Amino acid sequence: MKTIGQTLWAIPGGHIPLRGTGHEPELTSHDLVCLLNMNDRDAHIKITIFYQDRDPVGPYTLKVPARRVRHVRFNDLIDPEAMPLDTDYGGVIESDVPVVVQFTRLDSGQAENASMSAMAFPVDEPQVLPDKAKK
Amino acid sequence: MKTIGQTLWAIPGGHIPLRGTGHEPELTSHDLVCLLNMNDRDAHIKITIFYQDRDPVGPYTLKVPARRVRHVRFNDLIDPEAMPLDTDYGGVIESDVPVVVQFTRLDSGQAENASMSAMAFPVDEPQVLPDKAKK
Amino acid sequence: MKTIGQTLWAIPGGHIPLRGTGHEPELTSHDLVCLLNMNDRDAHIKITIFYQDRDPVGPYTLKVPARRVRHVRFNDLIDPEAMPLDTDYGGVIESDVPVVVQFTRLDSGQAENASMSAMAFPVDEPQVLPDKAKK
Amino acid sequence: MKTIGQTLWAIPGGHIPLRGTGHEPELTSHDLVCLLNMNDRDAHIKITIFYQDRDPVGPYTLKVPARRVRHVRFNDLIDPEAMPLDTDYGGVIESDVPVVVQFTRLDSGQAENASMSAMAFPVDEPQVLPDKAKK
Repeated sequence: MKTIGQTLWAIPGGHIPLRGTGHEPELTSHDLVCLLNMNDRDAHIKITIFYQDRDPVGPYTLKVPARRVRHVRFNDLIDPEAMPLDTDYGGVIESDVPVVVQFTRLDSGQAENASMSAMAFPVDEPQVLPDKAKK
Repeated sequence: MKTIGQTLWAIPGGHIPLRGTGHEPELTSHDLVCLLNMNDRDAHIKITIFYQDRDPVGPYTLKVPARRVRHVRFNDLIDPEAMPLDTDYGGVIESDVPVVVQFTRLDSGQAENASMSAMAFPVDEPQVLPDKAKK
Repeated sequence: MKTIGQTLWAIPGGHIPLRGTGHEPELTSHDLVCLLNMNDRDAHIKITIFYQDRDPVGPYTLKVPARRVRHVRFNDLIDPEAMPLDTDYGGVIESDVPVVVQFTRLDSGQAENASMSAMAFPVDEPQVLPDKAKK
Repeated sequence: MKTIGQTLWAIPGGHIPLRGTGHEPELTSHDLVCLLNMNDRDAHIKITIFYQDRDPVGPYTLKVPARRVRHVRFNDLIDPEAMPLDTDYGGVIESDVPVVVQFTRLDSGQAENASMSAMAFPVDEPQVLPDKAKK
């Protein structure tokens, strides 16, 4: 059986916003992980959360059935412990079959906010920076 | 003939916002798939929609002529069935020639909203998480 | 001499917003291409614009000096012709030395807008979708 | 020992917004680099900043301990020199062990702003653009 996607994904920029405005739960501020399982087999997912100043916490486990998508708010991860708000974290997603993973955030905290995000671009060759940088 | 791009693309984080504000259709809340065909041949596209709790729906078919771009709102996909609003989905795009695909969302629902998105970063090696995660 | 990055980049989702609010030119709505040249050689850039209903236009030419970054608004591309506002387009960037390219948009049109974007995830294997999709 | 991620990352689209609104420092406008170190070894990071009209500045050095995440505002980089606001820049991140890097921006300058970002998609084959572009 052919499978598609990848089995290990990383999200370095997690941070669930503290404040929110609008209809709940639809407009509650949240970080969201979106898991797409295009395979004919169920995907068993393990999420581990990395923090700035303590050991990783996990695994949070969940299932994405065959040929289904599942969107999970980090806000709703409670076992082995509830995710803290307003705290820097990184999420790592492991799956037993290949999946595709997208990260989104809704911040409904105040009208003035605009936000954007992108993974940095990974370059293959190491040690290429010019020596002439001002020190 | 040389061709450029990829023939299979995945968007796990689809969700057309329910509410909108402002000039229609320009500012109607929407999810958008942007297809760039740099080749000298037409691209025949098939979009399949994956849901959380029912079988995939598709294919939605469309054409991107040679050396053209085409931006299509998921809101406007109606055959084989109209796309539902306010529903989690994942979109999978197949093309018979390589194309490049970008996903964007406009949410004009309320002033307080700010949103961001990024694909998670796919890591090659499986089974690397530290054993010391708190359980 | 070592070089880093890539020489051909694609942005399918271009669309310069029509309306804007706030200090000009800082807060004028715009699409932006950000070019990073980490090399010790100048990068000569050619941008070609793909449209929905007419032939591609270009090349727009510009230079990014060695070890410099350059942010260019699509709004400011005028030769061989001025870029239209409120029009779907795709941008393709060619460089004679490898560079890294990021796309950003500022839409200052109305308070209610929130926007996000991500490249779709390219999957390697073609023809993998389940046959059981509803037709 | 296995390590995961990449050792060189590029962010072409840096620009710390000048204005901000709301609680400080939480809602101060900022550019943010998010570093995830999943390894069992500390990561020693060097950040170099590329500008439009002067030589690169760096390295800014920092450490991400083993199995930790660290989110650093470019606004807070002060040695060898404070980062300027409202200035185009590109950031390059080097690490002695593989890490994963995400870039985010919060712009709290005015309610009307919405923003998005994505890396352009790198295409492998060079010199593929059609010759028929209008000149």
